[in-house]
Amino acid sequence: MAVRIIATGGTFDKQYNPIDGTLGFEKSQVPQMLEQGRVHAPFVFEALPLLDSLDMTDTDRERVLHACQQAPEDRILIIHGTDTMQETALVLALASLEKTIVLTGAMIPYAVSGSDAFFNLGYAFGVVRLLEPDVYIAMNGRLFRWDDVRKDRARGVFETDS
Amino acid sequence: MAVRIIATGGTFDKQYNPIDGTLGFEKSQVPQMLEQGRVHAPFVFEALPLLDSLDMTDTDRERVLHACQQAPEDRILIIHGTDTMQETALVLALASLEKTIVLTGAMIPYAVSGSDAFFNLGYAFGVVRLLEPDVYIAMNGRLFRWDDVRKDRARGVFETDS
Amino acid sequence: MAVRIIATGGTFDKQYNPIDGTLGFEKSQVPQMLEQGRVHAPFVFEALPLLDSLDMTDTDRERVLHACQQAPEDRILIIHGTDTMQETALVLALASLEKTIVLTGAMIPYAVSGSDAFFNLGYAFGVVRLLEPDVYIAMNGRLFRWDDVRKDRARGVFETDS
Amino acid sequence: MAVRIIATGGTFDKQYNPIDGTLGFEKSQVPQMLEQGRVHAPFVFEALPLLDSLDMTDTDRERVLHACQQAPEDRILIIHGTDTMQETALVLALASLEKTIVLTGAMIPYAVSGSDAFFNLGYAFGVVRLLEPDVYIAMNGRLFRWDDVRKDRARGVFETDS
Repeated sequence: MAVRIIATGGTFDKQYNPIDGTLGFEKSQVPQMLEQGRVHAPFVFEALPLLDSLDMTDTDRERVLHACQQAPEDRILIIHGTDTMQETALVLALASLEKTIVLTGAMIPYAVSGSDAFFNLGYAFGVVRLLEPDVYIAMNGRLFRWDDVRKDRARGVFETDS
Repeated sequence: MAVRIIATGGTFDKQYNPIDGTLGFEKSQVPQMLEQGRVHAPFVFEALPLLDSLDMTDTDRERVLHACQQAPEDRILIIHGTDTMQETALVLALASLEKTIVLTGAMIPYAVSGSDAFFNLGYAFGVVRLLEPDVYIAMNGRLFRWDDVRKDRARGVFETDS
Repeated sequence: MAVRIIATGGTFDKQYNPIDGTLGFEKSQVPQMLEQGRVHAPFVFEALPLLDSLDMTDTDRERVLHACQQAPEDRILIIHGTDTMQETALVLALASLEKTIVLTGAMIPYAVSGSDAFFNLGYAFGVVRLLEPDVYIAMNGRLFRWDDVRKDRARGVFETDS
Repeated sequence: MAVRIIATGGTFDKQYNPIDGTLGFEKSQVPQMLEQGRVHAPFVFEALPLLDSLDMTDTDRERVLHACQQAPEDRILIIHGTDTMQETALVLALASLEKTIVLTGAMIPYAVSGSDAFFNLGYAFGVVRLLEPDVYIAMNGRLFRWDDVRKDRARGVFETDS
């Protein structure tokens, strides 16, 4: 069965705007990344409004939850900003959806050289088909359950909370 | 416990030689890729002689098997050329090592723009920690058991054999 | 005789900081770019403090002028932010140095995919050896004299002022 | 007046074929490179059959000469393989076209990471508008006249012949 891939923005999907010199959002690059990955497994792509996760409100998280609830697929991969990834994971976990949901992101945008985004996307796409129903965060080669993870912002590293 | 990552060459790791204009092997790029992936999970890297998998002999496959047998780790990721990936998987499977071994590779070298290598590495690094002991091939978002896979060379796609 | 290449920052040389998510300055990438360009012509590289050109003060421009005056070379290439490139060009022109000075920059940082920086560097390195003594701006395949150029910021394009 | 840019292939324009694992030619990447360079100066692009310059015959060189003769522009930039660049330059020089013709190429294909192609294209695009009518080779930051250049193939470097 297909994996649903939901883009919500985050560092992962930021692009450079040559006119104002800022990093922001245009069209999600996730579909072209899946094409570059030559992905032959079934997936469905859905783009929600692309946001910096520091700008995400409760309403934005409700929208992500709603998308997960409405999805016919029971395996869901969410591209998300790293700064509030665990808050969104908490909202999804509390809804007890009986689906396997994996959130991933990047420390360096896909559009910037040296990015970890493509690796993280591959990692998350791999584990989402194998994990039991629950909510997980997958970042930089590590896998966390929603209730045992925190981001050390000073070092830019996800860790177990325990 | 750490994952052992064994480089054996293949398209994945080919680099361009500006003097003779060919694609060949220098030092494996896998360690720098894991650094780019900002991998914080434990791993051990081992480089065997880097070969085009069409040039791999029985002796070369025995060397890969030996490395898997000698490894203290029971989760092993092998970077391998795609053309004879299933032959090596067969050799490893017949040895019944009681280890989880995942072979991956790439259709386009990491050093070439538009490569799938970094995605495949992430994917394989994710699934190797979750799968039961056996020998698998992970390519372009799909996972195969060693006894149910073949490469359609005309299309450049791995498929189930069944 | 060698060309002096002076880095002063600008969009050209911005890099991504994964901890705070901003584009800023580290060590100039110009030397590695000249290596990637396999440049066999003689040059001398000098890094001044790397700045966003909107942050450049009169003192900063005096420093650039001083570096040009002190340089034993009479052909100088300056990497500069695009927003105030013509102000610095004016300061250099009014000093009547009897040197060929070419300012270049980029609309997209070298570290971001799709950057024009490497092309502009090649262009500027080519023309600086051929032009009469004066001060020029070289951007995106066009060459301007210091007194006949302006940046259309809304479109991100340099144009003749006339 | 516009510069005519003629693609003839060479290392510069080689792309990776994932099916057979070789470097060869598809559609020329030069137009997308000029777009990436955000080139606002006028140019006309023309693609001749894309060839490895070691495969170029006298007929192929006649075709390049013919294209230069037929071009209404008197400034012409030719993308060419490095191995026989000086042979083509000789054919063009002997025709005494009274045009400024600059040949350039690359040691590493544009499609391979670490390529010098984009730098060389910028360099050549810069000098072609400034040079007197004659035939030149521009490679890796150096400029040569057609009758004073040779490629040191062992080192991958163009040098003056004198």
